[in-house]
Amino acid sequence: MEAPFYSRLALIGIGLIGSSIALAARASGAVGEIAIHTRSPSTLKRAEELGLGDAYFATAAEAVKGADCVIVCVPVGACAAVAAEIGPHLAPGAVVSDVGSVKAAVVKAMAPHLPAGIHFIPGHPIAGTEYSGPDAGFATLFENRWCVLTPGEDVDPAAVARFVAFWRTLGANVETMSAEHHDLVLAITSHLPHLIAYNIVGTASDLEAGIRSEVLKFSASGFRDFTRIAASDPTMWRDIFLANKDAVLEMLGRFNEDLAMLTRAIRTGDGDTLFELFTRTRAIRRSIVAIGQDTAAPDFGRRGTEKPEG
Amino acid sequence: MEAPFYSRLALIGIGLIGSSIALAARASGAVGEIAIHTRSPSTLKRAEELGLGDAYFATAAEAVKGADCVIVCVPVGACAAVAAEIGPHLAPGAVVSDVGSVKAAVVKAMAPHLPAGIHFIPGHPIAGTEYSGPDAGFATLFENRWCVLTPGEDVDPAAVARFVAFWRTLGANVETMSAEHHDLVLAITSHLPHLIAYNIVGTASDLEAGIRSEVLKFSASGFRDFTRIAASDPTMWRDIFLANKDAVLEMLGRFNEDLAMLTRAIRTGDGDTLFELFTRTRAIRRSIVAIGQDTAAPDFGRRGTEKPEG
Repeated sequence: MEAPFYSRLALIGIGLIGSSIALAARASGAVGEIAIHTRSPSTLKRAEELGLGDAYFATAAEAVKGADCVIVCVPVGACAAVAAEIGPHLAPGAVVSDVGSVKAAVVKAMAPHLPAGIHFIPGHPIAGTEYSGPDAGFATLFENRWCVLTPGEDVDPAAVARFVAFWRTLGANVETMSAEHHDLVLAITSHLPHLIAYNIVGTASDLEAGIRSEVLKFSASGFRDFTRIAASDPTMWRDIFLANKDAVLEMLGRFNEDLAMLTRAIRTGDGDTLFELFTRTRAIRRSIVAIGQDTAAPDFGRRGTEKPEG
Repeated sequence: MEAPFYSRLALIGIGLIGSSIALAARASGAVGEIAIHTRSPSTLKRAEELGLGDAYFATAAEAVKGADCVIVCVPVGACAAVAAEIGPHLAPGAVVSDVGSVKAAVVKAMAPHLPAGIHFIPGHPIAGTEYSGPDAGFATLFENRWCVLTPGEDVDPAAVARFVAFWRTLGANVETMSAEHHDLVLAITSHLPHLIAYNIVGTASDLEAGIRSEVLKFSASGFRDFTRIAASDPTMWRDIFLANKDAVLEMLGRFNEDLAMLTRAIRTGDGDTLFELFTRTRAIRRSIVAIGQDTAAPDFGRRGTEKPEG
């Protein structure tokens, strides 16, 4: 199977992910034309200034006309409304996908609005930065990152294979699984870490003024890494927590049990329990570096360079 | 005041911080000679192979002889024993300092063993990576990082001024405050973030095998940043939590109150509360970038580069 995989790609929503798909699809020749719609007129204008597509539309209904691939790149909470709007205007046989960080809720929200003959292949490219908007996108965002697809069991395998090839051409490693399994894995790898980061940064911002200014000053000691995560898009993350409530609450329950044990160890001066946990977590870091999901370069100094030789 | 500030610097302990002090002091000409002791014979041998000092000693007592500046670079829990050993052998008028992440407990542990005429100036360079040991050190580790000094009110101001100048020559920004205030600020900026990171990585490692392997695979979605923090030295961090128990438990209490509120918001579908918090935390991130404590470069992609132009 060779590029272009689709003659016309429609992107509904042109934030960090949408604009990066546009740039990567263009750079790789994965599609013919690119049609763009986004709700805000000023953002649509900005997308045009940036030259992200070939055609720009004030409504989603117009943008999807004649497109053989439609990727909805809006916050999870807005997917149902978009699906309802585009449903009657989709070209027969088109692929419809999304990029939401939650999958079961998105399937439930979109599927009822999609007519027969459409290949619905929900997707989640696990890539991003703490920035958002069309100016934040770049063509290499998906390189060597995972993209999880969660097609239902009744979806045409040839359509799935073509969409997998499209994402691989954009640089991603692709894996397919059920929407429910995706949501459980992401609850612990992504949603809980974000919730905890938001929480600790919130706790710090509520401190007495005399301490708060020093929290910023001395943030390099660990806090800084949490603020980076807690700077992610508020609308997107509100929707994620509401849409993946059950899995997030399940993981939060486990986290709280463990934290209670750790708190007790500190209170009672049980150094052995602390040391045992801290040794175990260090090994997990090494596994992540070993499988290439992060670099081994020391990063606390934020110089983006390896330690100098000698 | 000009370098060299001390004719002979003794470093007791030669891990990441000790070796970085040795390299930075040498590179900047901040000291004349460097004497090194560390407990493990193989680590001492490694320090000699790396050429970190001018003289190497099997005991701390020998290493401090004739030194006009002694910096104890061992885990917080080991400071008392080192102070007891070196106390009788210190040169009159020498500066004695440390690099521990907790200050009140270190003062309590070391001060009783230091004879009159010694200038005791506890210190905490807020710099590091997730690596440890003499091979991890580099000369620029302290550049543009804070070093907090917590001298008692009775310490000779001239001795403090000289030690401040020494640290500035190593590249650090220096601030002085009370040991108690330091411990409260670090509890929220450093100790609590580490505790939370250790905890969440531990929670993930206890998951059922089918999910656990995917936690590593999809770690780029947020979890990865926690594993970086949770890979820090286990002995050092065990000692920190035991030594700064009260301040850590205080901040942990606040964190738990906030998390309970956030959990309830998710459970009841209260999107407004989530959105309000996530907007507030984003602003804190911007403050940290604005005051130069982190770069604005998007880091989730871990490429160490700015977004390409255009």
